[in-house]
Amino acid sequence: MVRSYRLTSGDGIDGLTLGAEPPREPGPGEVAVAVHAVSLSYRELLVARGTYVLPVKPGVVPVSDGAGEVVAAGPGVTGVRPGDRVTATLFPLWQDGPLSAELLPQLGGSLDGLLTERAVVPAAALVPVPAHLSYAEAATLPCAAVTAWNALTGDGRGVRAGQTVLATGSGGVSLFVLQLARLLGARVIVTTGRRDKEPRLRELGADAVVNYRDEADWPAAVRELTGGRGADRIVDTAGTLAGSLRAVAVDGHVAFVGAVAGDWPPLDPRLVFGAAATLRAVAVGSRAQFLAMNEAIAAHGLRPVIDRVFPFEQARAAYHYYESASPLGKVVIAVRAPGGPGRGLQFRPGP
Amino acid sequence: MVRSYRLTSGDGIDGLTLGAEPPREPGPGEVAVAVHAVSLSYRELLVARGTYVLPVKPGVVPVSDGAGEVVAAGPGVTGVRPGDRVTATLFPLWQDGPLSAELLPQLGGSLDGLLTERAVVPAAALVPVPAHLSYAEAATLPCAAVTAWNALTGDGRGVRAGQTVLATGSGGVSLFVLQLARLLGARVIVTTGRRDKEPRLRELGADAVVNYRDEADWPAAVRELTGGRGADRIVDTAGTLAGSLRAVAVDGHVAFVGAVAGDWPPLDPRLVFGAAATLRAVAVGSRAQFLAMNEAIAAHGLRPVIDRVFPFEQARAAYHYYESASPLGKVVIAVRAPGGPGRGLQFRPGP
Amino acid sequence: MVRSYRLTSGDGIDGLTLGAEPPREPGPGEVAVAVHAVSLSYRELLVARGTYVLPVKPGVVPVSDGAGEVVAAGPGVTGVRPGDRVTATLFPLWQDGPLSAELLPQLGGSLDGLLTERAVVPAAALVPVPAHLSYAEAATLPCAAVTAWNALTGDGRGVRAGQTVLATGSGGVSLFVLQLARLLGARVIVTTGRRDKEPRLRELGADAVVNYRDEADWPAAVRELTGGRGADRIVDTAGTLAGSLRAVAVDGHVAFVGAVAGDWPPLDPRLVFGAAATLRAVAVGSRAQFLAMNEAIAAHGLRPVIDRVFPFEQARAAYHYYESASPLGKVVIAVRAPGGPGRGLQFRPGP
Amino acid sequence: MVRSYRLTSGDGIDGLTLGAEPPREPGPGEVAVAVHAVSLSYRELLVARGTYVLPVKPGVVPVSDGAGEVVAAGPGVTGVRPGDRVTATLFPLWQDGPLSAELLPQLGGSLDGLLTERAVVPAAALVPVPAHLSYAEAATLPCAAVTAWNALTGDGRGVRAGQTVLATGSGGVSLFVLQLARLLGARVIVTTGRRDKEPRLRELGADAVVNYRDEADWPAAVRELTGGRGADRIVDTAGTLAGSLRAVAVDGHVAFVGAVAGDWPPLDPRLVFGAAATLRAVAVGSRAQFLAMNEAIAAHGLRPVIDRVFPFEQARAAYHYYESASPLGKVVIAVRAPGGPGRGLQFRPGP
Repeated sequence: MVRSYRLTSGDGIDGLTLGAEPPREPGPGEVAVAVHAVSLSYRELLVARGTYVLPVKPGVVPVSDGAGEVVAAGPGVTGVRPGDRVTATLFPLWQDGPLSAELLPQLGGSLDGLLTERAVVPAAALVPVPAHLSYAEAATLPCAAVTAWNALTGDGRGVRAGQTVLATGSGGVSLFVLQLARLLGARVIVTTGRRDKEPRLRELGADAVVNYRDEADWPAAVRELTGGRGADRIVDTAGTLAGSLRAVAVDGHVAFVGAVAGDWPPLDPRLVFGAAATLRAVAVGSRAQFLAMNEAIAAHGLRPVIDRVFPFEQARAAYHYYESASPLGKVVIAVRAPGGPGRGLQFRPGP
Repeated sequence: MVRSYRLTSGDGIDGLTLGAEPPREPGPGEVAVAVHAVSLSYRELLVARGTYVLPVKPGVVPVSDGAGEVVAAGPGVTGVRPGDRVTATLFPLWQDGPLSAELLPQLGGSLDGLLTERAVVPAAALVPVPAHLSYAEAATLPCAAVTAWNALTGDGRGVRAGQTVLATGSGGVSLFVLQLARLLGARVIVTTGRRDKEPRLRELGADAVVNYRDEADWPAAVRELTGGRGADRIVDTAGTLAGSLRAVAVDGHVAFVGAVAGDWPPLDPRLVFGAAATLRAVAVGSRAQFLAMNEAIAAHGLRPVIDRVFPFEQARAAYHYYESASPLGKVVIAVRAPGGPGRGLQFRPGP
Repeated sequence: MVRSYRLTSGDGIDGLTLGAEPPREPGPGEVAVAVHAVSLSYRELLVARGTYVLPVKPGVVPVSDGAGEVVAAGPGVTGVRPGDRVTATLFPLWQDGPLSAELLPQLGGSLDGLLTERAVVPAAALVPVPAHLSYAEAATLPCAAVTAWNALTGDGRGVRAGQTVLATGSGGVSLFVLQLARLLGARVIVTTGRRDKEPRLRELGADAVVNYRDEADWPAAVRELTGGRGADRIVDTAGTLAGSLRAVAVDGHVAFVGAVAGDWPPLDPRLVFGAAATLRAVAVGSRAQFLAMNEAIAAHGLRPVIDRVFPFEQARAAYHYYESASPLGKVVIAVRAPGGPGRGLQFRPGP
Repeated sequence: MVRSYRLTSGDGIDGLTLGAEPPREPGPGEVAVAVHAVSLSYRELLVARGTYVLPVKPGVVPVSDGAGEVVAAGPGVTGVRPGDRVTATLFPLWQDGPLSAELLPQLGGSLDGLLTERAVVPAAALVPVPAHLSYAEAATLPCAAVTAWNALTGDGRGVRAGQTVLATGSGGVSLFVLQLARLLGARVIVTTGRRDKEPRLRELGADAVVNYRDEADWPAAVRELTGGRGADRIVDTAGTLAGSLRAVAVDGHVAFVGAVAGDWPPLDPRLVFGAAATLRAVAVGSRAQFLAMNEAIAAHGLRPVIDRVFPFEQARAAYHYYESASPLGKVVIAVRAPGGPGRGLQFRPGP
């Protein structure tokens, strides 16, 4: 039997229910994966609360982000073998190029996700795990890191080495923005409301940290840090678009990650025009973007930041912790204990 | 003596005053131009009203858009000769690449403009007039056509042949969007509120015209015209961003031309996120974009649409007509009468 | 039984053998297609001669380019239904993004092709036929038209409306370069060695035709036609790289389609450097490029040029004609006669 | 009096003659610069030998690359003040966008260069020196570093973090390729024929060094280092295009810097086609590219590598050393001695 969590969107975190089911064999084009670890993204809270922007099937196996080992492949599957270490892309149909409405089916939403011991997913969704990463680390990538990569590189121009990137807030996406923007040669400013997080942010490579509790006018602080010019590119994960538009350079780029906050204040379009800026909604990214990011992650030995790892049986606790504890780094659920079957989970908790 | 109009921003259209001044000789890097024609853009109304977004010098010679003949070149000017037929780019310092704060000085704003018999402008601002265009036609290009070209091509991706472009409204920018998007191989939908304009819009190449007075829900009409997909790219000149975001395809592009309307309703950022769209402010364009557009205009023999031509002495009347008459095509002021000095103005009124 | 041609690479055109085989049912991820028409590209001659650059399986069903009707779908196939009118992309694994070595398996080479009444192909290879095209017309697209589209748009910059494109020669790729470049807003110059083809080339939209038998120095003729500047972009299908590099503008782009000619003369790299040019090998294109091209073809009602249609039984004659007759337009083999099963072939021979 | 070297192209290094001339005041749009240091590039040898690809005026002040302090500005010059630390772009007219024939006038060629105590150059050529660089370091940038930057980023695609870049040879351009590609997040392989240079190349960040004297088949060695795939992007400064095309990944990019070697062996175009590669001639770069590179250099505190500094009086010796000594890093001529007028030269010899 396979132990899986299931959830009906709207039932809240405590609607998460663990059950046991007979294993389903992979059909044509499908692969069975022994899941080792999953990680939580803001979308998981929205799915639980019933406020997610896309349709969720009733009784879904939740959680889009995870990593594991291939255990079986269905008919017609090529290029994948049992034992392969894999993670999965959020939108299995979105392989490359622009997003379109037909490509929106997603793991942990309209399709079953990975909070299960054994997931059956489309082979087209699989992405190899970079060799230097543990399963827990790889499990952090699909939503947060791909979103950050897309925000930095996914428009026609892309960030340029030497430019200044601002990450608003110190959540999961922002930490990847920080790490990836450094890797791409940019300077990085991060905002945070938590003084205790500042040293770690600097350690991760932030050239400057702006505390928006100390600085009543943080956009002005960003302007000052950039010689009056403003940040060339902002990744707004905090719902502070009006501030971001005052902090961005003329002809700059604001990528925003709308899933994070439920209620954005209405926006005065004159701010966008006054900044002569581009405002781009970033909805994670394609599998091709995931693969390109992994090349960069592998070349640099980049390690995702994990705040805390919960055992499979404490998935609800993991959700509650993620929701309320303001973690610095990703919250991971170990589906298979280290030392258990497969190559196991190397615990790498955050500092 | 040189006859020039001058205006102090905020004095309104009737603050336009015609006077005579001794000619100023071009200094280093400057050129004197015998102006033959100018055209009016929405910015001229904002300058007159005192609501323009950029600084305007007191007593400015207004109007950024015009065309004429070079009559003298100052020291150090190369590549320009008396007799050259020229128009000028709005931001003389913005030669190519992205816009930045230092590049914002502009003709008819912080610098004197072209509503004068003889303008002295930086040589770097000059753009040759395509051979097939009259001065009046060339005078229509600097704001409206360059804005349309930038809106269609100025992001990293650009419109692709076969895609669908929506131009909201039938003002000066929209007509150029229509003509240029056709030239670039796109399908074009135009919205209008005026039934009498529909036939001319179709004649100019519109694949479909949506009348927003007939169609209570014009974004739905656009979706229907695109098989449910939405328009790939929208140029919003009408301040209808909420509608545009409902009419745009997933991962589509909304270029907006903020100068047009003074009061945009506040925007729900969830609409941008829900559309997974990019919203880009378009502030005219660089001289390099102007030159590239002119290559396309010349190759296709594209002719701008002129609604009506006023004589120089009736500049105030031209402003009032532009403000209130809902013209179909540009409103031009002939500074030199046809048959007068220079190669003269070929009147080409709209139908 | 299914009638199929088979060929072992190196046996020459007369090695083409027609046989009858029991139908193979589509496996997982595969689709069976009732082929209506195929078209010949230069690669088919190279495959027959044994000089093709990629591996060819012994006894292959030859011909990569064709169109037909879906008749059955294997397990796990979604989004495709019997009755769908389809063509196929040359490299089924090359869906989008850059080419790489793993993506080289191809129809009519390492995979069976379409010179058969009933082909079984990967579902991922299928591309819908634009509604206004007959099967014969659609069968001309996969190699020649996609190559032309990639040559014009597939680098980072792409051709820009108003630029000048040169197509060398008047073969199948060149005619699509001509038609597609016009559609993209460019001016087009075509070279040919055949005076009798000149009127038709002009009719298809060529702004100028240079006859390289009349003009001893055709690159000089191209320079003259472009005011000394040279063509902005050249698609070289004739193996005349030295000439192309003398005809291209500074910082221009030469796309070359190497499959066409077996023996290119060696190239002096100083020519590339002296031209400050980019030389790009174009190996057809991805499925995403095919889809994008079809959007443009559909929007403009573009009709491919067909020189002559041969019946299925005369495939060898079609090859010989293609090899020696210097056709103007594509050579098509009608696998199903018009009026036969399926929606049939609408004969649309060239003029 | 101003001491300047002058040279007539074709007279060889020993044709360099030092003389004294009355200072020339800057005309409109010009600036006078007290030169502090210049550096030698391969073009200087070609200019001396008379084999340079572009026209050189008789008795030219040679050397395009240098840095110094503004001492006077001519009429109409804005944005530049005495005391500014500046270097200059090779092609003063090439401000941004693509290169074209009109933009080819260049310092140390058709225009006087910088091997003089006081140069008068177009204000449009000036580029501010990054604050952390000495004059000697800044003097190394205009040809070698901008070429490297353009080779890495100047096509539509640009190098992507995580990709593998190969620099052939360990000359001036290659060292900048190495440093800048690392800064852009790429892995870097460098080839060299000199075992004694290998440790320094690794120290500068090379992930691998291939010695082409040890490895008879260096392209095979590069393939092996990249898991069989080949380098994604190659900057060929050594005239080894056939090798580069065997070392490049499918659909990869080979930038070549033709000025370096006088006699490239002829190239079999089938190699370009077989690699499905792009071959791009890189002719230094625009002023906009120089500025963008400087942003990256400043953000990372990148320091150019200087091999040796010669005093102004020993310019001929510097040329001879550069020609024959196979330096590791740039060869600089100090026009003003450290401690002399101006802020002086900080000697920073290579290790």
